[in-house]
Amino acid sequence: MDIATILGVTLGFVVISWAILVGGSWSIFVDAPAIAITVGGMLCSTLIHFSLPQFLSIFSVVKKTIVARVPVPAELVRKMAAYAAVNRRDGALALEQEVGKLSDVFFARGLQMVVDGQKPEDIRDFLSMEIQYLQDRHATGKKILEYMGAAAPAFGMIGTLIGLVQMLKNLESPDQIGAGMAVALITTFYGAIAANLVFLPLAGKLGLYSKAETTAKEMIMEGVCAIARGDSPTAVREKLQVFLSQGKRTEVKVQL
Amino acid sequence: MDIATILGVTLGFVVISWAILVGGSWSIFVDAPAIAITVGGMLCSTLIHFSLPQFLSIFSVVKKTIVARVPVPAELVRKMAAYAAVNRRDGALALEQEVGKLSDVFFARGLQMVVDGQKPEDIRDFLSMEIQYLQDRHATGKKILEYMGAAAPAFGMIGTLIGLVQMLKNLESPDQIGAGMAVALITTFYGAIAANLVFLPLAGKLGLYSKAETTAKEMIMEGVCAIARGDSPTAVREKLQVFLSQGKRTEVKVQL
Amino acid sequence: MDIATILGVTLGFVVISWAILVGGSWSIFVDAPAIAITVGGMLCSTLIHFSLPQFLSIFSVVKKTIVARVPVPAELVRKMAAYAAVNRRDGALALEQEVGKLSDVFFARGLQMVVDGQKPEDIRDFLSMEIQYLQDRHATGKKILEYMGAAAPAFGMIGTLIGLVQMLKNLESPDQIGAGMAVALITTFYGAIAANLVFLPLAGKLGLYSKAETTAKEMIMEGVCAIARGDSPTAVREKLQVFLSQGKRTEVKVQL
Amino acid sequence: MDIATILGVTLGFVVISWAILVGGSWSIFVDAPAIAITVGGMLCSTLIHFSLPQFLSIFSVVKKTIVARVPVPAELVRKMAAYAAVNRRDGALALEQEVGKLSDVFFARGLQMVVDGQKPEDIRDFLSMEIQYLQDRHATGKKILEYMGAAAPAFGMIGTLIGLVQMLKNLESPDQIGAGMAVALITTFYGAIAANLVFLPLAGKLGLYSKAETTAKEMIMEGVCAIARGDSPTAVREKLQVFLSQGKRTEVKVQL
Amino acid sequence: MDIATILGVTLGFVVISWAILVGGSWSIFVDAPAIAITVGGMLCSTLIHFSLPQFLSIFSVVKKTIVARVPVPAELVRKMAAYAAVNRRDGALALEQEVGKLSDVFFARGLQMVVDGQKPEDIRDFLSMEIQYLQDRHATGKKILEYMGAAAPAFGMIGTLIGLVQMLKNLESPDQIGAGMAVALITTFYGAIAANLVFLPLAGKLGLYSKAETTAKEMIMEGVCAIARGDSPTAVREKLQVFLSQGKRTEVKVQL
Repeated sequence: MDIATILGVTLGFVVISWAILVGGSWSIFVDAPAIAITVGGMLCSTLIHFSLPQFLSIFSVVKKTIVARVPVPAELVRKMAAYAAVNRRDGALALEQEVGKLSDVFFARGLQMVVDGQKPEDIRDFLSMEIQYLQDRHATGKKILEYMGAAAPAFGMIGTLIGLVQMLKNLESPDQIGAGMAVALITTFYGAIAANLVFLPLAGKLGLYSKAETTAKEMIMEGVCAIARGDSPTAVREKLQVFLSQGKRTEVKVQL
Repeated sequence: MDIATILGVTLGFVVISWAILVGGSWSIFVDAPAIAITVGGMLCSTLIHFSLPQFLSIFSVVKKTIVARVPVPAELVRKMAAYAAVNRRDGALALEQEVGKLSDVFFARGLQMVVDGQKPEDIRDFLSMEIQYLQDRHATGKKILEYMGAAAPAFGMIGTLIGLVQMLKNLESPDQIGAGMAVALITTFYGAIAANLVFLPLAGKLGLYSKAETTAKEMIMEGVCAIARGDSPTAVREKLQVFLSQGKRTEVKVQL
Repeated sequence: MDIATILGVTLGFVVISWAILVGGSWSIFVDAPAIAITVGGMLCSTLIHFSLPQFLSIFSVVKKTIVARVPVPAELVRKMAAYAAVNRRDGALALEQEVGKLSDVFFARGLQMVVDGQKPEDIRDFLSMEIQYLQDRHATGKKILEYMGAAAPAFGMIGTLIGLVQMLKNLESPDQIGAGMAVALITTFYGAIAANLVFLPLAGKLGLYSKAETTAKEMIMEGVCAIARGDSPTAVREKLQVFLSQGKRTEVKVQL
Repeated sequence: MDIATILGVTLGFVVISWAILVGGSWSIFVDAPAIAITVGGMLCSTLIHFSLPQFLSIFSVVKKTIVARVPVPAELVRKMAAYAAVNRRDGALALEQEVGKLSDVFFARGLQMVVDGQKPEDIRDFLSMEIQYLQDRHATGKKILEYMGAAAPAFGMIGTLIGLVQMLKNLESPDQIGAGMAVALITTFYGAIAANLVFLPLAGKLGLYSKAETTAKEMIMEGVCAIARGDSPTAVREKLQVFLSQGKRTEVKVQL
Repeated sequence: MDIATILGVTLGFVVISWAILVGGSWSIFVDAPAIAITVGGMLCSTLIHFSLPQFLSIFSVVKKTIVARVPVPAELVRKMAAYAAVNRRDGALALEQEVGKLSDVFFARGLQMVVDGQKPEDIRDFLSMEIQYLQDRHATGKKILEYMGAAAPAFGMIGTLIGLVQMLKNLESPDQIGAGMAVALITTFYGAIAANLVFLPLAGKLGLYSKAETTAKEMIMEGVCAIARGDSPTAVREKLQVFLSQGKRTEVKVQL
């Protein structure tokens, strides 16, 4: 679980709720037609912009940013060096049992190809394609979240316009402006919260995980190809060092 | 037919209508001069920006995003492999009958060039030019939709300014502000709906189809050139695999 | 004459005028100080941004987008092929009479260089420089129009601020707000019309003509250099085919 | 002196002043705290963003855009050809007296290096470095002006917020809204004038001079290196022709 | 300590405070719920966007822009030339004592590698990796500050919407609008100050230091590798000259 995301969303809504309660009650901020316009309009606009499969993927995309699990780089290096040692000592088939222990599908697939005796170039080609496919999916997910972060305030403003037109049309005296405008402003409030506390920061977090996951998978691809070439554990560790600069670097000894 | 677009536009107008009906009647939102300023001003501005042929192409462009029909990648691979087999077994002329069965003009043209015995380089040159021409047309269509998505709110605001100036000039007491402002705000409402529920998401959808159609046509070009070279069905299938990463990949067996 | 531009500007002002007349009279929208601030401020700002020669070139730039005349691509190919035939049959000097018939200065210059027996590389160098010079002039013209399209609303807003400050300072009762605000809003109206009905779409149209004129001149350069090299009409036609993809392509037979 | 800049700034303030005087008096637009917030806040923000030396360079940067003096390209070509002739006829030392006559430091330095018998490659290296240094200084100056053009309206808005909060807090009846709001709006007015009549157009003008000065210095570098190589006046003139396309080209005869 | 940053922040708050005191008292601008929404919402949104380690690094990032200490380029050149002389005269081990005197960790590490007799290519590889790591950290810090500079006004606006809705809902007569709106506007004020006086200029200052620090470290890397290669002090000084164009250049004599 990603603590930052959970903490940020929870604390964010707590802060907004507290600010509301200090000045009044929650009830005036709940309005069904307002939610329908802001959320409904945003979803319909997103449906027109993207394809149906992409639209339905929003949920797994949001889930990914909350229940994210990126392999720890130093741990990957340790594993790769160990597998290289096994490969040099006992041969590729001895790695077969390791494949079953891996929970990461990408890692397991790559290692299986080593066990099957595939050539390093073929392994690299296949894994590169998988990484490209992953990056495309992430890029689309980020574009969807960013589009929703722009559409929510836009439909919030449309809702406010509808409310204002109806309120002003039926206005009999300036005394009534207050209540009508309060209701009209609620959709703009929903749109602003949706954009700034949910969609835009989630798009940023998805970008962050995309980079971390791509880096991890590139490490795995390099490591697996190195093992397939029969490199020694030391050579494998050296090759993977350039990827460690992003994370905790002091755990694995840097050898020059 | 593209379900997402139809669903999005329909549901979007349903949601907006429901929100309006909840608070009043539809009638106050219908105003002929308001439509004239917003839609008319937007169209005139677009006419100044683009050429007359480009302007008239808007309709076929919008039609394309609703009645879109992109070849299924896996289906293309299957067909190409089949044609390659026929070509190897019976020669190019045996493909003549297949040309007539193809509904895709681009595919039919390319296959006809194989039947005519054209060299692979010439086929590639000609089909590349066709793909470039298609991409240019799509890019222009997208620019037109995006320009309309920016011009609609701009003229909505101009309409609101006209309404406000007239309303304020003739104001005799603050009690009259209401009705006049309601009418003035309607053009801004039209502009916002036009931009966020129609033009900007349609521009996004067109970009999506452009990419899918370009990828499909590049597949066809690669496949047709491979057949012209006399490649075996297996070689053809391998060549086209890199294009399958975008769609459903499990249908065609990946061979390394 | 470019029909789209004339039509767009005319219809645009007709639509705006009609919308104004529906709600009142034209007179309240005419205000000399308002025009002075919006147009005057915009021109002064443009004068500070660009140099005096560039500023004075605005007029010829705007004229170009209305009275535009781009050679028809298919016609150019036909002429080039004809000249190539004359050159092969009777020699370069026979083209001398054709030079006088050409109204396009660029084309005439290039052809004269062929008649003078210049080397193809020298012709290409000189004509490339002319094309570069033309592109720079167009790019500057577009930047000036785009800057004016941003400055007009900015000074419209400045005019509204001046009007509001003066109106609010002298306000004795809320009943007077109406008339004063109406006048204050007029500059914002001028700025919005100037930007969205004149400068920004004209900038877009200029970009369009720039591309079309550059493409035409590149065709002429390729054709003239091919003639200087002594190519046959068929070879010349083939070379120029790649330029035809932008326009009507079915007129000249595509030979592979 | 750059006429366009002087004219633009002067006329701009005349137009704004006239518009103010038509509707009232100048005095209501002068407010010391308002100037302090808008100008003071903008300067402090710029001081945080840039370093102290860069901040202090604003004045020389603004002076450059008013008292600009860019060498006339045709004049440079004439001088270079003359120096080349002297060099060929009398040798490099004969150019020593010319060095003292040059007011342009960059030109004098380059010519001195020719007199000293430096190799063309060394002269080019040194002068390239000088040009790079100049471009960096111009780029920073432009960034500072653009930042100030964004900060001025931002602090104008902050001043308006301060004024509104104070005015609304002390409001006893809606009759007082007028005078208080007038004062509050003055900072927004200052910010808009500063941005649109001073900083943003000056940034554009600086960009223009930067380009012209870079082109002139590149001409000088090419010319001086050609003289150091012992090129003839004709060869020097040919080499410098490509730079003339930006300015008046008909003065120096184009030789092919 | 960076004088510009300290001066800018201090003077900025002095100017704003003076402007407030001129028109009223400080007290109406202090509101706990307002601070909670603006600052709290901004921090929560940042926490969702970035990871927890990145979020916690904000403080060291801000500290860096105030207590910045970038090596003086001319001083680095002087040291490198001196070390090169020692290396040529007494050998690498004689530099061991110098390592301890260096306060810059990066410089000390590089010099230690020379003392250890590492090959220049290995030294360059390692130091390049360190520079890349530094640039990534700076880029992230800048992105965080820029995001906070956008989120602060966004949550300021959300706070204003909450305040307006509550104020308008409970409005009994237009006389109460004043006090309620004053409180509602305070969050927008906080957001604008936070963005324009703190986060956005600090992001710019961090970008400035990042460039200066990267340049200094690239100088150190070039110098240390040159010493490892056994270059003479003159050769070392020549190599480092290209870096001096950014700072004060007249201190070290330029030798061609």
